[in-house]
Amino acid sequence: MINVGIVGSTGYAGEELVRLLLNHKDVNIKFCCSKKFADKKYSDVYKNFFSLIDKECTEDDLIKMSKEVDVIFSATPQGYMASLLNDEILNNCKIIDLSADFRLKDVKVYEKWYGIEHKTPNYLQVSTYGLCELYREKIKDTRLLANPGCYTTCSILTVAPLLKSGLIDETSIIIDAKSGTSGAGRNEKIDNLYCEVNENIKAYGIATHRHTPEIEEQLSYVSGKNITINFTPHLIPMNRGILATAYANFKDGKKADYQTIKNIYNDFYKGEKFIRILNENVYPETKFVKNSNYVDINFKIDERTNRVIMLGAIDNLVKGAAGQAIQNMNIMFGIKEDEGLNLVPAVL
Amino acid sequence: MINVGIVGSTGYAGEELVRLLLNHKDVNIKFCCSKKFADKKYSDVYKNFFSLIDKECTEDDLIKMSKEVDVIFSATPQGYMASLLNDEILNNCKIIDLSADFRLKDVKVYEKWYGIEHKTPNYLQVSTYGLCELYREKIKDTRLLANPGCYTTCSILTVAPLLKSGLIDETSIIIDAKSGTSGAGRNEKIDNLYCEVNENIKAYGIATHRHTPEIEEQLSYVSGKNITINFTPHLIPMNRGILATAYANFKDGKKADYQTIKNIYNDFYKGEKFIRILNENVYPETKFVKNSNYVDINFKIDERTNRVIMLGAIDNLVKGAAGQAIQNMNIMFGIKEDEGLNLVPAVL
Amino acid sequence: MINVGIVGSTGYAGEELVRLLLNHKDVNIKFCCSKKFADKKYSDVYKNFFSLIDKECTEDDLIKMSKEVDVIFSATPQGYMASLLNDEILNNCKIIDLSADFRLKDVKVYEKWYGIEHKTPNYLQVSTYGLCELYREKIKDTRLLANPGCYTTCSILTVAPLLKSGLIDETSIIIDAKSGTSGAGRNEKIDNLYCEVNENIKAYGIATHRHTPEIEEQLSYVSGKNITINFTPHLIPMNRGILATAYANFKDGKKADYQTIKNIYNDFYKGEKFIRILNENVYPETKFVKNSNYVDINFKIDERTNRVIMLGAIDNLVKGAAGQAIQNMNIMFGIKEDEGLNLVPAVL
Amino acid sequence: MINVGIVGSTGYAGEELVRLLLNHKDVNIKFCCSKKFADKKYSDVYKNFFSLIDKECTEDDLIKMSKEVDVIFSATPQGYMASLLNDEILNNCKIIDLSADFRLKDVKVYEKWYGIEHKTPNYLQVSTYGLCELYREKIKDTRLLANPGCYTTCSILTVAPLLKSGLIDETSIIIDAKSGTSGAGRNEKIDNLYCEVNENIKAYGIATHRHTPEIEEQLSYVSGKNITINFTPHLIPMNRGILATAYANFKDGKKADYQTIKNIYNDFYKGEKFIRILNENVYPETKFVKNSNYVDINFKIDERTNRVIMLGAIDNLVKGAAGQAIQNMNIMFGIKEDEGLNLVPAVL
Repeated sequence: MINVGIVGSTGYAGEELVRLLLNHKDVNIKFCCSKKFADKKYSDVYKNFFSLIDKECTEDDLIKMSKEVDVIFSATPQGYMASLLNDEILNNCKIIDLSADFRLKDVKVYEKWYGIEHKTPNYLQVSTYGLCELYREKIKDTRLLANPGCYTTCSILTVAPLLKSGLIDETSIIIDAKSGTSGAGRNEKIDNLYCEVNENIKAYGIATHRHTPEIEEQLSYVSGKNITINFTPHLIPMNRGILATAYANFKDGKKADYQTIKNIYNDFYKGEKFIRILNENVYPETKFVKNSNYVDINFKIDERTNRVIMLGAIDNLVKGAAGQAIQNMNIMFGIKEDEGLNLVPAVL
Repeated sequence: MINVGIVGSTGYAGEELVRLLLNHKDVNIKFCCSKKFADKKYSDVYKNFFSLIDKECTEDDLIKMSKEVDVIFSATPQGYMASLLNDEILNNCKIIDLSADFRLKDVKVYEKWYGIEHKTPNYLQVSTYGLCELYREKIKDTRLLANPGCYTTCSILTVAPLLKSGLIDETSIIIDAKSGTSGAGRNEKIDNLYCEVNENIKAYGIATHRHTPEIEEQLSYVSGKNITINFTPHLIPMNRGILATAYANFKDGKKADYQTIKNIYNDFYKGEKFIRILNENVYPETKFVKNSNYVDINFKIDERTNRVIMLGAIDNLVKGAAGQAIQNMNIMFGIKEDEGLNLVPAVL
Repeated sequence: MINVGIVGSTGYAGEELVRLLLNHKDVNIKFCCSKKFADKKYSDVYKNFFSLIDKECTEDDLIKMSKEVDVIFSATPQGYMASLLNDEILNNCKIIDLSADFRLKDVKVYEKWYGIEHKTPNYLQVSTYGLCELYREKIKDTRLLANPGCYTTCSILTVAPLLKSGLIDETSIIIDAKSGTSGAGRNEKIDNLYCEVNENIKAYGIATHRHTPEIEEQLSYVSGKNITINFTPHLIPMNRGILATAYANFKDGKKADYQTIKNIYNDFYKGEKFIRILNENVYPETKFVKNSNYVDINFKIDERTNRVIMLGAIDNLVKGAAGQAIQNMNIMFGIKEDEGLNLVPAVL
Repeated sequence: MINVGIVGSTGYAGEELVRLLLNHKDVNIKFCCSKKFADKKYSDVYKNFFSLIDKECTEDDLIKMSKEVDVIFSATPQGYMASLLNDEILNNCKIIDLSADFRLKDVKVYEKWYGIEHKTPNYLQVSTYGLCELYREKIKDTRLLANPGCYTTCSILTVAPLLKSGLIDETSIIIDAKSGTSGAGRNEKIDNLYCEVNENIKAYGIATHRHTPEIEEQLSYVSGKNITINFTPHLIPMNRGILATAYANFKDGKKADYQTIKNIYNDFYKGEKFIRILNENVYPETKFVKNSNYVDINFKIDERTNRVIMLGAIDNLVKGAAGQAIQNMNIMFGIKEDEGLNLVPAVL
């Protein structure tokens, strides 16, 4: 049994972790931490858990908790884990951090985009970026796992194969992404109110969204070149789901036909259970991955403009957060990678 | 392994059956029947199943299929199963019918409310009404299971305990119910279009809805008296969920306090895993049972009017259709009643 | 030109007032007050008004404002206007208060249901309850207008005609109401977040909702008897609209046929532009009154249970708040009652 | 009084025309045509019009109708008006066609993208493209007005000023657009059902959407060069609204600062009432133009990638269909351009 503590367990990603881990046969949830709801019953905060969890939320005490669990998941605001992590904790247990604190290798990039000081930049070189399909081997041995962001997971996995192939112009990548509202978290802000989000669509963080450098860093590793992209997220009136629509120009003289690109994707993701390269002319929709850990991907060649449009869809709370965190945990603890993640997408 | 065939597998209840049965460890889905989509791949009809089901939809041939499976689920329009069922089929396999064809014992009531002739009324006395919490023993031995309606499951389970207690006036019951739109099925009608349903609420079938006699028949068994009720369903702009708000007068001189009624509910549903009687002042919301087989119930005494308000919530596609059908299958085949149904409600 | 000041102009009812008054040809909006957003441009708070309003929000200063305007609309939390109102203000200008402060005649009832002390109960006998269709003559001469609540407007207008007719049992009235989420206001609470409201329905304020005594008081005037009712509101995932489903028993021996009741409604609302008694078998839906000042009403006789089901729908922000407030203003200032209110319902 | 006939009056664009024209003081709606609902009362098809319209739907008889009206609006499927139009009709009355039949000047382009034969290509050179802000002078004198598409209106108006300025690379334009579901029309297709659209986002018509050549043709006129673009529409779970997110590279050495581009937009749309160039760092959201004829536009310079992101929002049924059609009518009949269109956006 893997004993688990969850910091930030009452946010939406935290709730999803609890929900999925409850059905993970090798996991025992020992601590649900929540500053805001400390001493309140977890099932009073999220009443769907009535009769399923009889635990109270506890204050964060990472050092104490680290001695009693095998792994701590943290689904906390940026900067929080960076301010608390130390060697003792890391010696006691493994850490899977769902925040951005340990994702970027360059502390200056972090501090510029996030606008806060990083308290423990020394761990940036220690942490492993937890995009399972790209870094499975490294993940096996890590004690500090930086779980990727939701937009970034979807964007990187959608674009990486073609970028690696060398067919597309590395300077031409534009990613126009759309997300359900759970991505904004459970924050009491006017912008998150039902009547503000419903019957509306907006772009936000245009040319400034914090997931941009994370996508760029990872795509740079994939391509071996310094990648700069445009990334524009949009807020959609629905609970879950991310769709990324990515555009790139073919390099001069590098026209490719359907089957060539199809093969590139198939080869890149060979044997990957959670990646589904769809059939020709079938394009990702968020409802087809809802409540599951799947990533649906497809592409369309536009011969008129000599561009390729790449599309990817994930559930932002599963593959974009809790599901991938559990997939990482499974890898880190050497159990079946899909344990607890055999979730059939709920189209309704 | 229980071999299963599903008739009407491409409606919303059919899809939910396929989705849940895929994760049932004792079940093998052999046939997904669909008149409309015969010979089309099931995963082309519902693309969430891409890579998960590699089966084609087949025409209905109940006799042939009954020889190859252990149980047939039918999620078909009213009258269809009644027109096809015969002894040969019932000898070959068990039937779990999600339509209304075998729910009512009185064929005249059926024909009056449904407006169609019943082709095989002889089976009405053979069938077992599959409200698991009320008829578990009978269900164990039946070969023809009439799976209850969605509104009816929610309404009966909410009202039955207090009605049985004799505290409430049997003539005073009013049930005001609200349902998500998946209850209307996957029918190409103007009334079901997104723009017609969205940003709207309406009542329908006022004083004439077909689930009325089903609720009345079952409540009559519970109380031992002839129950007549008002039942008003409403259509809500959401995919899943039913909330029933039921009103009844206390009988003269039968004032009851909170704890008395709480005990009545607790006793009635003692040991029932899927029934959750909520804590005082916590009331059912559909999101707290979404994607699960739970029934959440609570009540409020109004001393000013000497009435009790009883509230119940279910997921119409799970406990209101596919989940209860599987619960019935588990009982009929003598396996664990919650097998395949350990679904944690998905609040988002 | 009627000079207008609006207190609480940045809540949802306030915004709707501004929106509708902008197209009222006899009105000049002089002040948009907002404590929260004082000194911010109104069109920065609600960006739909960009290029349409070039005014800044101002702090509330009722005495000063009352000297510069003809009427003050207040769309503020309960207790606020009661704490500020005085004779000087009322001498300077007319007041149309959208809060509950001056609706109930009995200060004890107010203090019991609202849980706060009423600071100026002396005005309760001075104020006029602004349900235009019932109190038009009184409204003409009032200086202090208590604009009815949203649920109450819909409930009273739906039930009043039959109640007055003496056909229904005054003790049997149950009102099950459903409201869009703008009724909850623009408050930064978890319960109002998009992901909490979306894909969910819940009842709230069961047997305790503050609109109950307001409905009871008005229905008591209509019937000449002391009316006690059950009132249960529900929250619906949509922006606008209220649907009330009301149940009553016919009195013993008082069976009525369709045409009799139809005539009762038609006679009661004869000449009322904003009341639409629908055709037989056509029932109110909120989308058919959206963005308009209409009240759609119809009824169904259930001979099986000897009850009548009465249904009414309004737009909670228009006839349930800003629209009715403007209708009242028009009456109070002797201009055409429908001025600024010729709004065609927006079905989409 | 302008006498008006509407063909296709029971689709969503037709309904919006009726709704807006009812409040147009110079218009008398004489005919509401509908093949599907002929002889049915219009207010039975759209019950929001109960008590407001007492007209029956009539069969299309364009020649007869053309003798009795001043203008015919047609909101019909592609190919329909092209198959019926003739000189007699055009001599009798003016035509404002909301379909694509007379928008493209090159019949081969029409036939290629729409996949149908154009029956009256001779009218292509006669018709005027009704983008009011670009073609006001021509519109005044036309008898055959081709009302622009919804996506195209939004896309062209968003991109045209910068394209005309010569600052951006004409080959680099990518438009990623998002639309509410009313854009799909009132068609009884599975894809349009509530449960299929709700809680989902998808791209469609990728690299093949029919609005592409219309945008390209108009942008080519603006720039004087042959423009080819990528255009990707997405379906959003909301009723109304289109948001276009457009990307373009600055030409080599043509870096521009904020104020330069701001001036370009301001100059291009000087005096245009319905175009709102937003303040710096405020970006278009569909709710800020809902139910109005406004186009909200803004842009963001991304110095990292040397691109500009241009964003535009409209209500697809108003400026994207019925509103622009009325604006065109006003111009064609020499009345105030904003008559009937002083609609304050309804943020809720």
